[in-house]
Amino acid sequence: MDNLPLCEANNVPLTPITFLKRASECYPNRTSIIYGQTRFTWPQTYDRCCRLAASLLSLNIAMNDIVSVLAPNIPAMYEMHFAVPMAGAVLNPINTRLNAKSVATILLHAQPKILFIDRNFEPLAREILHLLANEDSQLNVQVIFIEEADFSKRFSTNELDYEGLICRGEPTSSQVARMFRIQNEHDPISLNYTSGTTGNPKGAVISHRGAYLCSLSAIMGWEMGTFPVKLWTLPMFHCNGWTLTWSVAARGGTNVCIRHVTAPEIFKNIELHSVTHMCCVPTVFNILLQGKELDLSTRSAPVEVLTDGSSPPPSLVKKVQRLGFHVMHAYGLTEATGPALFCEWQDEWNRLRENQQMKLKGRQGVGILTLAEADVKNTNTQESVPRDGKTMGEIILKGSSIMKGYLKNPKATFEAFKHGWLNTGDIGVIHPDGHIEIKDRSKDIIISGGENISSVEVENVLYKHQKVLEAAVVAMPHPVWGETPCAFVVLEKGDIIQGDREDKFVTSERDLIEYCRENLPRFMCPRKVIFLEELPKNGNGKTLKPKLRDIAKVFVLHDENIVSSKKVQRKKETNRVDFFTSRL
Amino acid sequence: MDNLPLCEANNVPLTPITFLKRASECYPNRTSIIYGQTRFTWPQTYDRCCRLAASLLSLNIAMNDIVSVLAPNIPAMYEMHFAVPMAGAVLNPINTRLNAKSVATILLHAQPKILFIDRNFEPLAREILHLLANEDSQLNVQVIFIEEADFSKRFSTNELDYEGLICRGEPTSSQVARMFRIQNEHDPISLNYTSGTTGNPKGAVISHRGAYLCSLSAIMGWEMGTFPVKLWTLPMFHCNGWTLTWSVAARGGTNVCIRHVTAPEIFKNIELHSVTHMCCVPTVFNILLQGKELDLSTRSAPVEVLTDGSSPPPSLVKKVQRLGFHVMHAYGLTEATGPALFCEWQDEWNRLRENQQMKLKGRQGVGILTLAEADVKNTNTQESVPRDGKTMGEIILKGSSIMKGYLKNPKATFEAFKHGWLNTGDIGVIHPDGHIEIKDRSKDIIISGGENISSVEVENVLYKHQKVLEAAVVAMPHPVWGETPCAFVVLEKGDIIQGDREDKFVTSERDLIEYCRENLPRFMCPRKVIFLEELPKNGNGKTLKPKLRDIAKVFVLHDENIVSSKKVQRKKETNRVDFFTSRL
Repeated sequence: MDNLPLCEANNVPLTPITFLKRASECYPNRTSIIYGQTRFTWPQTYDRCCRLAASLLSLNIAMNDIVSVLAPNIPAMYEMHFAVPMAGAVLNPINTRLNAKSVATILLHAQPKILFIDRNFEPLAREILHLLANEDSQLNVQVIFIEEADFSKRFSTNELDYEGLICRGEPTSSQVARMFRIQNEHDPISLNYTSGTTGNPKGAVISHRGAYLCSLSAIMGWEMGTFPVKLWTLPMFHCNGWTLTWSVAARGGTNVCIRHVTAPEIFKNIELHSVTHMCCVPTVFNILLQGKELDLSTRSAPVEVLTDGSSPPPSLVKKVQRLGFHVMHAYGLTEATGPALFCEWQDEWNRLRENQQMKLKGRQGVGILTLAEADVKNTNTQESVPRDGKTMGEIILKGSSIMKGYLKNPKATFEAFKHGWLNTGDIGVIHPDGHIEIKDRSKDIIISGGENISSVEVENVLYKHQKVLEAAVVAMPHPVWGETPCAFVVLEKGDIIQGDREDKFVTSERDLIEYCRENLPRFMCPRKVIFLEELPKNGNGKTLKPKLRDIAKVFVLHDENIVSSKKVQRKKETNRVDFFTSRL
Repeated sequence: MDNLPLCEANNVPLTPITFLKRASECYPNRTSIIYGQTRFTWPQTYDRCCRLAASLLSLNIAMNDIVSVLAPNIPAMYEMHFAVPMAGAVLNPINTRLNAKSVATILLHAQPKILFIDRNFEPLAREILHLLANEDSQLNVQVIFIEEADFSKRFSTNELDYEGLICRGEPTSSQVARMFRIQNEHDPISLNYTSGTTGNPKGAVISHRGAYLCSLSAIMGWEMGTFPVKLWTLPMFHCNGWTLTWSVAARGGTNVCIRHVTAPEIFKNIELHSVTHMCCVPTVFNILLQGKELDLSTRSAPVEVLTDGSSPPPSLVKKVQRLGFHVMHAYGLTEATGPALFCEWQDEWNRLRENQQMKLKGRQGVGILTLAEADVKNTNTQESVPRDGKTMGEIILKGSSIMKGYLKNPKATFEAFKHGWLNTGDIGVIHPDGHIEIKDRSKDIIISGGENISSVEVENVLYKHQKVLEAAVVAMPHPVWGETPCAFVVLEKGDIIQGDREDKFVTSERDLIEYCRENLPRFMCPRKVIFLEELPKNGNGKTLKPKLRDIAKVFVLHDENIVSSKKVQRKKETNRVDFFTSRL
């Protein structure tokens, strides 16, 4: 066989930024972005991104420099997903729900050259800059504000703000050619922090190749056809909008940007722009439930909703679907660039009862096409577990869409890639039909008398109780069994107990424990139920189980007697104060 | 930014053979192949492929060795698309419609170590081997027959036939691991000849990376969801079934294999197995029209038909869609690994009249997602043509799914990749909406008085005439204008003229020229119409225009007078004899 050398015609590095160029050529008349009264076409978005990239180059942004951004889902945030890597730099979208200290920790670690901040976050920005100044931090970052632009007026090219940069960017054609022909597909495109609160920040470095493959897999996993109209309810700072920022360009779709994720905003935009697709974590379902039913007589199909972040409770899925949404569940993590498993619907499931269908929808599903391996391994032997739907092990992933590693954190990188795959830390099973189902985060598993209890399984039972709005189950120390389940529950609005109606509260705890006993093996039932007005959550809407475990630790059950409900109630309120003052 | 070295977890070479492993794990209960009474599941297909690959290794097949195959769309043909590259070898599927001499030319050029031949081609095999023996060819190829297997009986492991190899293959687990973890994604996976008849065979070398990307693009371009049931009407030897051999595994689909592409076989299999997808060249539409309407009351949707090879005549598409098929048009070529453009349907088109819709369906469309560039260039200046739907240029392609080059043919490789892209040799325009439309093969363009005439455009007008079944237009020499169009036409069955009804024949020629004058600028109208009972075609169903040009040359039009129809008729019959004796 000949040695046929690769050449310019047949060896083009893979990067999702080419989707923008293709969209401007293949979909010249289509709307790329809608934001309030603002509308762009794909050629306009292409032009704006080329200009911004040229301006970044003129600000001496060099290859692999970090450009951080703190912004909600506004057009600038979308554009930067292309423009920043087009300038050879690495985008670092920061969670806008973090406090100043957490953001400062990330900035000190990432050492960006530029930080773009939405003007509405100016108070936060001042606080961050104050912290950074105090830290004697050696961080030399240029802060550029993104103004709420009136796109109809041309900006002065002298202003050093976002629109000014777009206005004054004048790329040459050879610059543009270089923007879309990257040198190495393994180069980083994005830096996504999984957590900024601890002294050990983990910034997952995502490659062009990984982002490209993952965004194609998202299209295929979700079966997103051409010309989707995607409402951005999911923050783009979250894994680059699960890589769908790039996928929408690939499909010539329309990005409906909104600043605030509220029920009126969501429903108004769905109707105004005939939204077809949206993504959100399951907690947003509660926001959707505050809206009304979609008028399916004026739509060709329900709104496709992709959910990820945690398994959607079946009862919640059922309610949301009845409003006119069709839910698909995926499983992803920052380290996997975006979605890694999709719960692919199987036709046979259509014959099952609705409750059973909703339960199956909660499974994490099968590995995306661009992963080489998605498996569940026994953590001791590193062998695959039997595909029996029962034997638990750790979910592991392998493939070109896995992150390059954690920035400046070789120890965490080594741990993540131990054994030659990505160790997700999630504990699951594989069903005989090939679907993976998470039973728990490895650290959330409750071990009682040597038995593994999946907190998720207990939560799912609680969610079925008609009065339960939200539930989280964690381990609570137990002198005999080591650990025992403790449930934290938020009741449906009408059922929230006032301080002067404590008697009803007592009944409810017993009710729920009794309910669990009817639906679960005895050893899996919570011995304690604590009622809260809301669960503590991080910026991504994930329940902060470590916080709940801290509370649960206070209630060591010395024997089978339940601690007096009065004490519980007091403890709860004391705790509530401190865990809602700090976010994440 | 850290230098994060690639590792086993995040750097897996891209190859479509991983789709087989994934299918066996993610879709364990699904049917992979149906062939008559035979059915396999994905784990069975996985097992058979591993066994075949192990047997190939035991026959001393080494890295990059060629394994040729001459077989129709039987299970073995499908399995070899995985098993041969799993053994590190390169699959060379040969067009079964070629004659012995052409096959011998290919074999001498490709130098395969093994040639698999379906037992039904034994006479052809003998002829080929006879030719090769005479040639003193130094070809040392092992011929292995594929028997029409009774899969219910176990084959003796001593037989050196296809099923024997599968039976005796006993791969070790480390062998299997190596089979799916290829070393270099740029290594060849397939060798696909574009032509075997001349002294200059062109064997396009396809890489694992290219096949992987192209098969994903085919899924997205065609919007093929999970679990398709694909009827194999398209020969798998044709660009590996347009890369859909691999795509079906990626989607956990079912391959319905058939040996003979006839109307009864097609319709029987569609009904028996609820076929959802099929591919074919437009000439197969004529076969479909011999069948009956599909019973759409028992189906959830029409059969999705992907067509390629030549632009489907609007009238033919209309007829076929009325039977219960839904046609999508793609444009591909062997050098692009498979489909390169898809005619993505635009919602606005739904508001157009049916005829207009059918015409738009004939466009080649927009570049697939995994191409970095699909453009139309002025062949002199190498500049992109304006997107006006009028200015013609050559279609060029660039990206990682383009072939590595032609085997042992540096001159043709150089020509193909001149200017840093793949020169397709097809002449087209770009419409303002971004869609590319082919006007002609560069060598099929008719240049009359300095004007370019697209033969396809004239053909499309002829196709609209209700009596025309098939039409092909080529250049015919003209002393004044240089060239002028000459049409070859096959009439609908009832309209075929017998020798004794010559008068009607004369009328028909004048009719058609008159019809063209009503629908085309005068200079584009054929000056001559020649009626045939069928058009000469090559093994892929493409009309052999060089043959038609040879005939047209006989009719040099010295002036505006039409040559007498009597003479034409005689000429036609003389010519018919020789161009139907040799195929391709």
